[in-house]
Amino acid sequence: MIDWKIKDNLYNPDNVAWHGNKFLTGNGYMGVRGTLEEYTKEQLVAVNLAGMYDKVGDGWREPVNAPNGFYGYLVVDDEIVKLQDNAEGVDCEEHYIELDYRHGVFTRCTTFRVFRGNITLKSSRFVSMDNVHAGAIKTEICADFHADVKYVFGIDADVWDINGPHFDIIKVNNDGLLTVDAVTHEKNYNVSVAEEVKSDFPCEIKDEEELNKALKSVSFITDVNKVYEIERFFAVYTSLDCDRPIEKAKEDTARIAEAGFDKLLDKHKEAWEKLWKYSEVIIEGDDKSMEALNYSLYHLHSIAPRHADNLSIAARGLSGQTYKGAVFWDTEMFILDFFLMTEPEVAKKLIKYRIDTLEGAKKKAAEYGYDGAFYAWESQEGGVDACSDYNVTDVFTKRPMRTYFKDKQIHISSAIAYAIGKYTHMTGDDSLLTEGGAETIIECAKFYYSALIKKVNSDRYELRDVIGPDEYHERVDNNGYTNRMAKNTFRLAIEVLENEKYTSHSCKSGEQIDWLNNENVREQLLTQFKDAFDKIYIPKPDSDGIIPQFDGYESLEDVTVEEVRSRLLDPKEYWGGAYGVASHTKVIKQADVVTWLAMYPHDFEMKIVEDNWNYYEKRTEHGSSLSACMYALVACKCGMTEEAFPLFTKSATADLAPGGKEWAGLVYIGGTHPASAGGAYMVAVEGFAGVDFKDGKINVNPRLPKNWTKMTFHISYRKTMYRVEIEDNNVTVKDVDDVNSMIA
Amino acid sequence: MIDWKIKDNLYNPDNVAWHGNKFLTGNGYMGVRGTLEEYTKEQLVAVNLAGMYDKVGDGWREPVNAPNGFYGYLVVDDEIVKLQDNAEGVDCEEHYIELDYRHGVFTRCTTFRVFRGNITLKSSRFVSMDNVHAGAIKTEICADFHADVKYVFGIDADVWDINGPHFDIIKVNNDGLLTVDAVTHEKNYNVSVAEEVKSDFPCEIKDEEELNKALKSVSFITDVNKVYEIERFFAVYTSLDCDRPIEKAKEDTARIAEAGFDKLLDKHKEAWEKLWKYSEVIIEGDDKSMEALNYSLYHLHSIAPRHADNLSIAARGLSGQTYKGAVFWDTEMFILDFFLMTEPEVAKKLIKYRIDTLEGAKKKAAEYGYDGAFYAWESQEGGVDACSDYNVTDVFTKRPMRTYFKDKQIHISSAIAYAIGKYTHMTGDDSLLTEGGAETIIECAKFYYSALIKKVNSDRYELRDVIGPDEYHERVDNNGYTNRMAKNTFRLAIEVLENEKYTSHSCKSGEQIDWLNNENVREQLLTQFKDAFDKIYIPKPDSDGIIPQFDGYESLEDVTVEEVRSRLLDPKEYWGGAYGVASHTKVIKQADVVTWLAMYPHDFEMKIVEDNWNYYEKRTEHGSSLSACMYALVACKCGMTEEAFPLFTKSATADLAPGGKEWAGLVYIGGTHPASAGGAYMVAVEGFAGVDFKDGKINVNPRLPKNWTKMTFHISYRKTMYRVEIEDNNVTVKDVDDVNSMIA
Repeated sequence: MIDWKIKDNLYNPDNVAWHGNKFLTGNGYMGVRGTLEEYTKEQLVAVNLAGMYDKVGDGWREPVNAPNGFYGYLVVDDEIVKLQDNAEGVDCEEHYIELDYRHGVFTRCTTFRVFRGNITLKSSRFVSMDNVHAGAIKTEICADFHADVKYVFGIDADVWDINGPHFDIIKVNNDGLLTVDAVTHEKNYNVSVAEEVKSDFPCEIKDEEELNKALKSVSFITDVNKVYEIERFFAVYTSLDCDRPIEKAKEDTARIAEAGFDKLLDKHKEAWEKLWKYSEVIIEGDDKSMEALNYSLYHLHSIAPRHADNLSIAARGLSGQTYKGAVFWDTEMFILDFFLMTEPEVAKKLIKYRIDTLEGAKKKAAEYGYDGAFYAWESQEGGVDACSDYNVTDVFTKRPMRTYFKDKQIHISSAIAYAIGKYTHMTGDDSLLTEGGAETIIECAKFYYSALIKKVNSDRYELRDVIGPDEYHERVDNNGYTNRMAKNTFRLAIEVLENEKYTSHSCKSGEQIDWLNNENVREQLLTQFKDAFDKIYIPKPDSDGIIPQFDGYESLEDVTVEEVRSRLLDPKEYWGGAYGVASHTKVIKQADVVTWLAMYPHDFEMKIVEDNWNYYEKRTEHGSSLSACMYALVACKCGMTEEAFPLFTKSATADLAPGGKEWAGLVYIGGTHPASAGGAYMVAVEGFAGVDFKDGKINVNPRLPKNWTKMTFHISYRKTMYRVEIEDNNVTVKDVDDVNSMIA
Repeated sequence: MIDWKIKDNLYNPDNVAWHGNKFLTGNGYMGVRGTLEEYTKEQLVAVNLAGMYDKVGDGWREPVNAPNGFYGYLVVDDEIVKLQDNAEGVDCEEHYIELDYRHGVFTRCTTFRVFRGNITLKSSRFVSMDNVHAGAIKTEICADFHADVKYVFGIDADVWDINGPHFDIIKVNNDGLLTVDAVTHEKNYNVSVAEEVKSDFPCEIKDEEELNKALKSVSFITDVNKVYEIERFFAVYTSLDCDRPIEKAKEDTARIAEAGFDKLLDKHKEAWEKLWKYSEVIIEGDDKSMEALNYSLYHLHSIAPRHADNLSIAARGLSGQTYKGAVFWDTEMFILDFFLMTEPEVAKKLIKYRIDTLEGAKKKAAEYGYDGAFYAWESQEGGVDACSDYNVTDVFTKRPMRTYFKDKQIHISSAIAYAIGKYTHMTGDDSLLTEGGAETIIECAKFYYSALIKKVNSDRYELRDVIGPDEYHERVDNNGYTNRMAKNTFRLAIEVLENEKYTSHSCKSGEQIDWLNNENVREQLLTQFKDAFDKIYIPKPDSDGIIPQFDGYESLEDVTVEEVRSRLLDPKEYWGGAYGVASHTKVIKQADVVTWLAMYPHDFEMKIVEDNWNYYEKRTEHGSSLSACMYALVACKCGMTEEAFPLFTKSATADLAPGGKEWAGLVYIGGTHPASAGGAYMVAVEGFAGVDFKDGKINVNPRLPKNWTKMTFHISYRKTMYRVEIEDNNVTVKDVDDVNSMIA
């Protein structure tokens, strides 16, 4: 069995950025990159806050990093002792970092060789899953000589930003508690951190001063080989939490310091165990897969906004500021299923974020001349689209390139409607619909209806000039995935309009909704959506069974991914756009037709699905972390477990394995890959285990990888939690009360 | 008054390419670049043939250059004497070249300083306007010492090509007559040239041998200051002319040699005088303008395919292979008016070329999924579209850039329909309509009808994803010019269908035309075209009176042409395409809205026309030679003669003044500018003279430039030739019979 720990024994400065993601801890409120406590912004330290955005000058808006309460470093015999390249007279004798991903505890342990002997610094830390504002760290110091130790620690407000600095004012105080009260540039939000220290041995505690840091130090002389423990506690509050966050941070800090590290850790672990109870996936016979999959789920848990009602999950989670901390379709199409099946109340929160930002989506639609709701491609608070018209820089000219992700990736709205439909279907709970979901679906359908065009001499409805999931081909007509998802949106809207419950119920702000209050409007919409549902063009397989990804795809140059790659003149140049190496070839960035097939495998007979898988897989660069999981999922549905397995592994190890893209020119684009994590879950449960829902029943048709002797997991369906066990293709599905009684 | 001659007294090798165009002679069958007879392909010598195309390998198809019968050079005292940089021991004492553009006679005269004295070579040459296959050159040699002269001459088959070599086989013979019989690569056409020499003084005539040249020489010792005349004659025939072109060339050559240079020249001049009789425009008070304008008309005469029934005029005339020798919209929109007003039978030929290539246009439409006729953007024989999908090379990556001129510049078909309508209206002759023109108009209307789209929730018909005249903005929706011209096409088609004459008449291949033979089809088309005419969206002026060039133009960055130019990183980079410096700004390449206003000045009140002129003119790069004349024309219509005048001059001197674009990277793109010449005529006659036709009458509302004291010209209207005299704003319009009797 697995030990739920990942470890790295090697200090290599080249891995610092990657390990920041791999060893991330988080609790949905904040994410703390897996960096050492002596690190600063140069090593991309971040305490990344969920849902707080700030914009400075011409830079894009991005989430804010809080002042780092974990900051601290050793001074031994008056020499600063830090694990970094440029420390003179200090060698690293031994070093490891470790993440307990069962409980989100990060540990580092380093033995430094200094002039007079060896000194070991070990610290364990976490941000609490029990109280999301709280962080705690216990540091143990032990030397094999009488070391003159000073441990400097506190709050580092000189934070890492991609497009900052975001703090205009930083008020630092070390009078009693350490505090930092910082004020953001754009909206003048306060971000407040307080910190307290505890130690149980004789020492001298002094104030320290460094710019934009609130610091103290603990000084003492060590006995030989004796371990000295220092506990520190901090709390983070912002203007989004309460009125006087600095006061709240201080109160909280005092209270948690009073409780002490061990008690806090117990409560934290308890909270994590509660999460794992129904979410862990036990795979017997393949520890590597079990580790990778549950490590992926750990990341999803770490960034789930359980504490809030108005947040979703950003494309790079809480691992920093990459992709502007914005919410993409990743959440609805790749991440949602995990929560739906294990913790539907979180799934509901995620979708509520979209319902709450409906006004933003309506505004965007109006700006582009559409009706209804056109959701943001990169959604920040209030549904503001953070996506720029110039999202890529030309490597040859250094000029910004006009991109169309924001304008033309219209499939985004269909994902929202799809998610609402899926939630309702899976949970049997229609509260989302009555709490604005029905309205959201109608507005999404209105959007697509207003985007539909037809040739004057034809009755076929089309969506032209769009970008599908494969972003390398811009401004295409009739992207199959987009059209199919729009058709589904019309179907959902028809269901809403035909259901007495939603038409008599009051949605959120129901008074203003014309289709609720006016029978004629309702009838007209119903007629329109039915017409659109019937007439929207859905590409059909050609004579070879291949579904064209968009109009004219079949006539593009048919070359291999390798051939296209070989045409790059610069390894960093963009493959897409008007003139990219892939743009006029059949090579695609990521699953597109196959994403459609993953969502609607029964649209075609299995032979067609398989043929399209084979056709498109070889033409896919997999340049997005959203690609492999969709291919794996569809491979499973075709019974191609062997083909699916490496793609599953790729998805599940997206944050575990090295080799991710970290830099685009000078811009850091690294971070964790929640969609890949969610996709891995989908492959495991919906693919390998073959879980499917139909007519109120769970169907399980397993096609497990060959080493997986047994697979055990839970799924929530229609308000009941079930335990699924698959062993030698025998399937047991029992609701958990039965299971419990069985075990008792 | 002007002397109808242009002259250059300076030998400058940098001007060789430009002068090749400026001093061009031609007769519609062939164009001979204004290069010296000792020049070869390195100096871009060309005897450019009308309507014969050839393709080699991956290069684009281009017209063929015939073997050059004007080739010849001097050898004095055993030293080669040529006017070029690398001749050792030879200096140029005096030199001029001269073009008599009244009669298309090119003269060069060079006095060389050689070791023993000065020797002068003077030669005059022409390709006959009386017999388009014939060329003749008279060379006079005179030395101030007893020079040992050898004059080597003949046919140079080692021709200049851009994408050649086009001759697979070159058979050279100097047995009796000199002959070259060459065979083209793609279609195995013969291109045959025969040549004869005549001299009336004692000399030795010998065969000479050089690769791919048929040569002889005449040797003699000169008396001091005595002039020796050598006359040469050649004829060119190809497989497009007759079955055994080499025989025909020989026969012709023998016959014309028999007649002699002076007689041939007389007949040639006579033919030219006939052309000028009704086409010259006399401007008193401004010789420069008169010269530039009539020089422009000279070029139009030189390339008019009077000898043929199936040819039009290429965008660079007969000046070489630039733009693939293809026919663009230039002919219908810029060149046609000159011939319509002076020689309508030539106008008819030009349009017949389009009618004859209707099948090609229908084929292109079908390839793109349209009905009807989608004419070639770059039309070669049979209406084949020579335009490439990759028409521009990226200067940074050297990669071909995907361009959309061929796919999306759909306004081309409207130009054809417009031309047929204009011919019929101006001449009162409906023979074009009954000879296939009616069918052509219907097919163009069917094309636009099939391209029309509408939003499902709107009744407005649109043309989306097009390129308008301003090619810097690609893939735009509802380009005003395009929509307006499509609307006109619907109008013309309605007129055809409603006119009993055309529906009962038999068009060319009338048996197969469904709308001629089936009343239901006719009625259905009529209904469709009327509906389209009513509903096609024509952009309206905004609150400032500005007509948006296309949807969203108003929101583009509003910067000056100079600002855009300053953003260039490479002087040769393309301003348009997806990421060009102009693409996302309001800066345009050429008249677009203003071309619409030039065609339909009465669509709006004059204030709107003027405001749009002012708005767009400052935002226009005038990067095309089609731009200035449209601006000038509209300026005249607004009474802004002063603003129009420099633009008229720019148009009229496009081939006269230096500074044209000659090279795009390593590709020669220079040549003459017939559209600019035709545009200059339009400005002079329709702009300054203010000639307009309405209800069968000629209206003349002159607004002459201030120095133009008197302007006299002829115009043909409804089968009658009129003489128009404008003096001090007094206008006389008389038909030429009256004029003649008056003069007699």
